Amino acid sequence: MSTKEIPYKIYLNENEIPKEWYNVRADMKNKPAPLLNPATLNPITAEELSAVFCEELVKQELDDDTAYFPIPEEIRNFYKMYRPSPLVRAYCLEKELDTPAHIYYKFEGNNTSGSHKLNSAIAQAYYAKEQGLKGVTTETGAGQWGTALSMACSYFGLDCRVFMVKVSYEQKPHRREVMRTYGANVTPSPSMETEVGRKINAEFPGTNGSLGCAISEAVEAATSNEGYRYALGSVLSQVMLHQSIIGLETKAALDKYGVKPDIIIGCAGGGSNLGGLIAPFMGEKLRGEADYRFIAVETASCPSLTRGRYVYDFCDTGKVCPLAKMYTLGSGFMPSPSHAGGLRYHGMSSALSQLYHDGFMEARSVGQTEVFDAGVQFARVEGILPAPESNHAIRCAIDEALKCRETGEEKNIVFGLTGTGYFDLVAYGKYNDGTMSDYVPTEDDLAKGFAGLPNVNE
Amino acid sequence: MSTKEIPYKIYLNENEIPKEWYNVRADMKNKPAPLLNPATLNPITAEELSAVFCEELVKQELDDDTAYFPIPEEIRNFYKMYRPSPLVRAYCLEKELDTPAHIYYKFEGNNTSGSHKLNSAIAQAYYAKEQGLKGVTTETGAGQWGTALSMACSYFGLDCRVFMVKVSYEQKPHRREVMRTYGANVTPSPSMETEVGRKINAEFPGTNGSLGCAISEAVEAATSNEGYRYALGSVLSQVMLHQSIIGLETKAALDKYGVKPDIIIGCAGGGSNLGGLIAPFMGEKLRGEADYRFIAVETASCPSLTRGRYVYDFCDTGKVCPLAKMYTLGSGFMPSPSHAGGLRYHGMSSALSQLYHDGFMEARSVGQTEVFDAGVQFARVEGILPAPESNHAIRCAIDEALKCRETGEEKNIVFGLTGTGYFDLVAYGKYNDGTMSDYVPTEDDLAKGFAGLPNVNE
Repeated sequence: MSTKEIPYKIYLNENEIPKEWYNVRADMKNKPAPLLNPATLNPITAEELSAVFCEELVKQELDDDTAYFPIPEEIRNFYKMYRPSPLVRAYCLEKELDTPAHIYYKFEGNNTSGSHKLNSAIAQAYYAKEQGLKGVTTETGAGQWGTALSMACSYFGLDCRVFMVKVSYEQKPHRREVMRTYGANVTPSPSMETEVGRKINAEFPGTNGSLGCAISEAVEAATSNEGYRYALGSVLSQVMLHQSIIGLETKAALDKYGVKPDIIIGCAGGGSNLGGLIAPFMGEKLRGEADYRFIAVETASCPSLTRGRYVYDFCDTGKVCPLAKMYTLGSGFMPSPSHAGGLRYHGMSSALSQLYHDGFMEARSVGQTEVFDAGVQFARVEGILPAPESNHAIRCAIDEALKCRETGEEKNIVFGLTGTGYFDLVAYGKYNDGTMSDYVPTEDDLAKGFAGLPNVNE
Repeated sequence: MSTKEIPYKIYLNENEIPKEWYNVRADMKNKPAPLLNPATLNPITAEELSAVFCEELVKQELDDDTAYFPIPEEIRNFYKMYRPSPLVRAYCLEKELDTPAHIYYKFEGNNTSGSHKLNSAIAQAYYAKEQGLKGVTTETGAGQWGTALSMACSYFGLDCRVFMVKVSYEQKPHRREVMRTYGANVTPSPSMETEVGRKINAEFPGTNGSLGCAISEAVEAATSNEGYRYALGSVLSQVMLHQSIIGLETKAALDKYGVKPDIIIGCAGGGSNLGGLIAPFMGEKLRGEADYRFIAVETASCPSLTRGRYVYDFCDTGKVCPLAKMYTLGSGFMPSPSHAGGLRYHGMSSALSQLYHDGFMEARSVGQTEVFDAGVQFARVEGILPAPESNHAIRCAIDEALKCRETGEEKNIVFGLTGTGYFDLVAYGKYNDGTMSDYVPTEDDLAKGFAGLPNVNE
């Protein structure tokens, strides 16, 4: 089919929304290493994990073999309110870059949470409701995940308790108000409401909080309150499963126009978006049916894949969560507080870590100013103001498209535009003022993080 | 066609984007009264108006007879980046209200400006570029229009100078940063950069500014700088013409499913969204081909249609703009500073005023708390956080749907969801805290505004 026929935006029909999520682990020869119980250091059992997560989600988390999970109808109905999301042909960006490459982006920002996070939030809320729970607890950093879970809980009439990293709670009051508008209870973390929060407050008075600490608080609040479970927006295999809808829709849209991507690019924090976007393509690669280049783009200020170690580590500062084998900078690693947006988690999804370790995926890290350069260039021609996280993928897509200009190659480049930057205007303001930080951790900074790795690796 | 087949979101195809704007004035028997030159009080000529607006836009402004204007291809290409916008069937809201009514909303918020304003901004920027101008000037209040014009100018490489009402400049730094990110030059108004700004600053030291004052500054900046013209996002007939794309798409989408609306509802400030949404339906009504109820919903704090007078008035505080005959509260009327969002303009589009005067349209005014009640109820089931302006239309649509519950009527209710509330979280915060203002002007407040009406009416 000629490229002339490709519209600016490819929308699937509502009845083309996938009816099953795809579990990439089913096609991995080397499965991700099992989660470990933090108390016993043995592989965690479904029963143990059920104290933290809903039963159905525990099944999804531990199942490395089932390739497809049906998407319940109530979730599909919710999806219809904001999905299918458009796959956009970036004609204007191509023209601006004067590149022979064809650039596509899957845009997940057209919903009030402002990102792809809603795809998993609605699933996690649904299973909580099905189990007859009162509510869920969670943590949020930049606020996208907390907003998404608030929306999902509001839809199902569930209570939602969000522990929000204190610095974000104070600096992002708007995100906080969206969550409150959707009926969530938002607490700055570390709080005095949990054991672990009180302990961290005592140890580090005046701390700004961290995602790892907020996770510990949310897990404690879930396990110590009757009728609550914990929900997490990234890193977990269940999240990657739910987010596979991004990749499945992308593939269906490309297939419709006979387009085969050469390079697929996603920003990488905990891996939820990247894992979801590449899932079905990675499945084809793992099964030897097709070949693609996958590029994970992380921030140079928190470079878990490019400078981390592939070892077992704690998932949270309070060490209450299961241990995961992953590329990590150590749960005590402190990213720069001046870093914008998400992508600040110290570790990476176990499944993506294994795939990277096995050579199925590339990774690169990029600095903050060059990332915003790309985001603003994109915004001015494509009309969408991207989230800082998404700017990482845009940077890499532009770089690859510029290489095509050099070589004359007509590559198909696909990247994930995970969300919008409407709640990140303080960061854009710093960029506009030329006061953006380009912090990169020194070897000493990294060594401090690695020093906190658990003994189990020895 | 059975309603079961109607999807949640009706998306037209890209090639179904209208190729012509529709000019409702062509079908009006009683044409809107002509604009008057503020110096001579005679009907303004094209030549006089060309000092303020681009030539092509002057033609559109003064043409009461041509029914269709072709949309230039460059504008249609830009439209393709965010249009067609979805017409959404509000299944979840219907369920929540337990109403037999069918509710539809045309959602214009899925673009970075966050509202329908981009539809006219790109047209006005295009004609400025075609005329070989350096740039355009404008004012902005809540910031939607300024953002839209910044995006449009950035796309065409035009300079964009925005006079932003001082209180918004200070209280909405995020909107300001979006405009700066798109390369606009943003100045708090009243400024010391214009004659009229210096005069107003001297007369009212420490003033918060007003839309009428910012308009005067922007017009002066346009007419006193070589290569600049002024752009306005509402009230004008040219804007209503560009915004007709909303109604044309809505009509095409409804026609596809054989749905005939009974009631069409839009929030009304200057009338840009309402006028655009209803245009093709109003055309049918004026030509006697069909009948519809149209409801303009305004804020009780600035009720130009429901409590204003239908007379000639100044369009701006500085009295530098042409006079228009319209429903108005007087250019000196001061709406409550605690009112959220837009809809604060003292007057109403001339064409809509005439249509209202001739009985083709209804109007009602609603209080702020009940408006946010409706918006939050909508957000929690439909997933979109609406702009405060849009909440006015939602309030009315819900009220009409609840009447249908009483009567059992299966009416088709269509309303305009003009934008998102992502930059209005301070207002939502006040609502969440229960500290929202429900100011309604007293008769004395109104009398003060009417006292400033020009002599031409006597």
